Amino acid sequence: MSGAPLSEDDLIARYFAPLAGEGAFALKDDAAAVVPPLDCEIVLTKDALVAGVHFFADDSPDAIARKALRVNLSDLAAKGATPLGFLLALALPAGWEAPWLAAFARGLGEDARDYACPLLGGDTVKTPGPLTLSVTALGATPRGAMVKRFAARPGDALYVTGTIGDAALGLALRKGDARLEALPQAGRDHLLDRYLLPRPRLAAAEAMRAHARAGMDVSDGLVGDLAKMMRASGCGARVELARAPLSDAARGALGADPAFFDVALTGGDDYELLAAVAPEKSAAFEAAMAEAGVPAARIGVVTADGQGVEFIGADGRARTFAHGAYRHF
Amino acid sequence: MSGAPLSEDDLIARYFAPLAGEGAFALKDDAAAVVPPLDCEIVLTKDALVAGVHFFADDSPDAIARKALRVNLSDLAAKGATPLGFLLALALPAGWEAPWLAAFARGLGEDARDYACPLLGGDTVKTPGPLTLSVTALGATPRGAMVKRFAARPGDALYVTGTIGDAALGLALRKGDARLEALPQAGRDHLLDRYLLPRPRLAAAEAMRAHARAGMDVSDGLVGDLAKMMRASGCGARVELARAPLSDAARGALGADPAFFDVALTGGDDYELLAAVAPEKSAAFEAAMAEAGVPAARIGVVTADGQGVEFIGADGRARTFAHGAYRHF
Repeated sequence: MSGAPLSEDDLIARYFAPLAGEGAFALKDDAAAVVPPLDCEIVLTKDALVAGVHFFADDSPDAIARKALRVNLSDLAAKGATPLGFLLALALPAGWEAPWLAAFARGLGEDARDYACPLLGGDTVKTPGPLTLSVTALGATPRGAMVKRFAARPGDALYVTGTIGDAALGLALRKGDARLEALPQAGRDHLLDRYLLPRPRLAAAEAMRAHARAGMDVSDGLVGDLAKMMRASGCGARVELARAPLSDAARGALGADPAFFDVALTGGDDYELLAAVAPEKSAAFEAAMAEAGVPAARIGVVTADGQGVEFIGADGRARTFAHGAYRHF
Repeated sequence: MSGAPLSEDDLIARYFAPLAGEGAFALKDDAAAVVPPLDCEIVLTKDALVAGVHFFADDSPDAIARKALRVNLSDLAAKGATPLGFLLALALPAGWEAPWLAAFARGLGEDARDYACPLLGGDTVKTPGPLTLSVTALGATPRGAMVKRFAARPGDALYVTGTIGDAALGLALRKGDARLEALPQAGRDHLLDRYLLPRPRLAAAEAMRAHARAGMDVSDGLVGDLAKMMRASGCGARVELARAPLSDAARGALGADPAFFDVALTGGDDYELLAAVAPEKSAAFEAAMAEAGVPAARIGVVTADGQGVEFIGADGRARTFAHGAYRHF
């Protein structure tokens, strides 16, 4: 729309008002009003994404919009929260075009509908820098029921949902890694898709809330995020690496080069859930996850603080990782 | 801190955890939990600020932090809401330095304390672009009591708080306008300060909630924002320009060049409140504003839709403005 300036109000009315939920007043106000469910607590999370850092500037606008919302929904899922809605701040570089913004809004609207998380408000500004987005997502849990990161205790079983490492391998493939380009088409597609589009585990939110003692989403790599959760909880952990759940595509990558195992376990963007579950609740947790249709692998156990976080290989020997997690700085 | 990388967790623990409120879990989690007040509705607002667009990159970090929070608090005040807390997304350019971030956090923390609006969470990322901030502020009103923008009715009295145009004149001065540089020191200081540091009218929130039918904060210029509120309400308005409240410094500027009147009335960053008040509530509104110590000038009246928004000069003749409001695009 460069050259044909649209006022901020027109832009909002055209692209974003159709996505507005109850309490957003069709985005005709500066603020939204949300009536909280009875006896709830409001769970709040906020993630920012920058073109060239968290996604590729030439990713489809549809995928960029979905990713910005989904990484926040992943946090809500880990906390056991039901989405209430979200706010979006969008800093647009000069030269944005109407079809780009229309596709962005379409993707965002479809996800808002599919995940029952309506747009409540936000802000649209121009930037001389790269496209930058920030989403604040609101969810609700019964009072006091938010699943904390720092509440794991020695003896708890450790679980991770889905498969680990696909997105990190997808990113490597996206960057042109020749070893991965030799994988079969279906595997390549799977890895690329997992990098492009997180799949927030909202289906698992209720199981997390009902049965997990501690939880977080895995966004910066399993090894680093697990260490983070144990540090916050004042615990150690013992993880059996052979139990780390890998997709067929990831196994294919490891077949091409075993060094990809480190990429899979320390790379970011999994958006799976990590849970610490008291031993007496493990069976119920597993049943609830199965009921929700979410695979959950038992990968280890929480240990006492002094133990550190140990990763045990298939040969029974401890191993370390050069880089624990994606570093933002 | 360039050259001595700090992990995101260390950065958060060092600079932002001391600002965290109840429910933010010392920022050791990905999410915050807020227990809403009884029978309330949660009022949500989100404003983004980009260096070089919404502030000068070389503004003091203290002032940048305060502005980012205060523009959101201004929205809460206009909606009649009491602050509950805020989330901050901070996209930092490479090469940020520890003293800069320490000063930023100090200013933010002082405002969070002074306005009783604690930090609840957020995200810190790096950006190859300019410093970019986004704040989501949460407030509360009794259920259904949020002051809407679109609820004005013909016959309502129109009020604006404080003085108008100081920030826009301060920006012109900041850009080196020679006519303004000739003003006395005290006037120049006043204008520059009003541009640098918004003063959110939280003291007026209760009066707005109790007595205003419609309201918004004036952030993009009185002329444009008033037209916006009337458009949203499906009304016209008649404003007497002689009643627009101007500071002594602004009057000094107008003395230097009458053309500054347009700058004052159409420039942004006032962060005063605009209210439409039913005639039978005007006296109570004025008394409550006086009680709160917030000057509120009656500038006109809401009219029927077909009337448009008329600005009447001291000579009794209608006048128009070339640019109604700050345009974001």
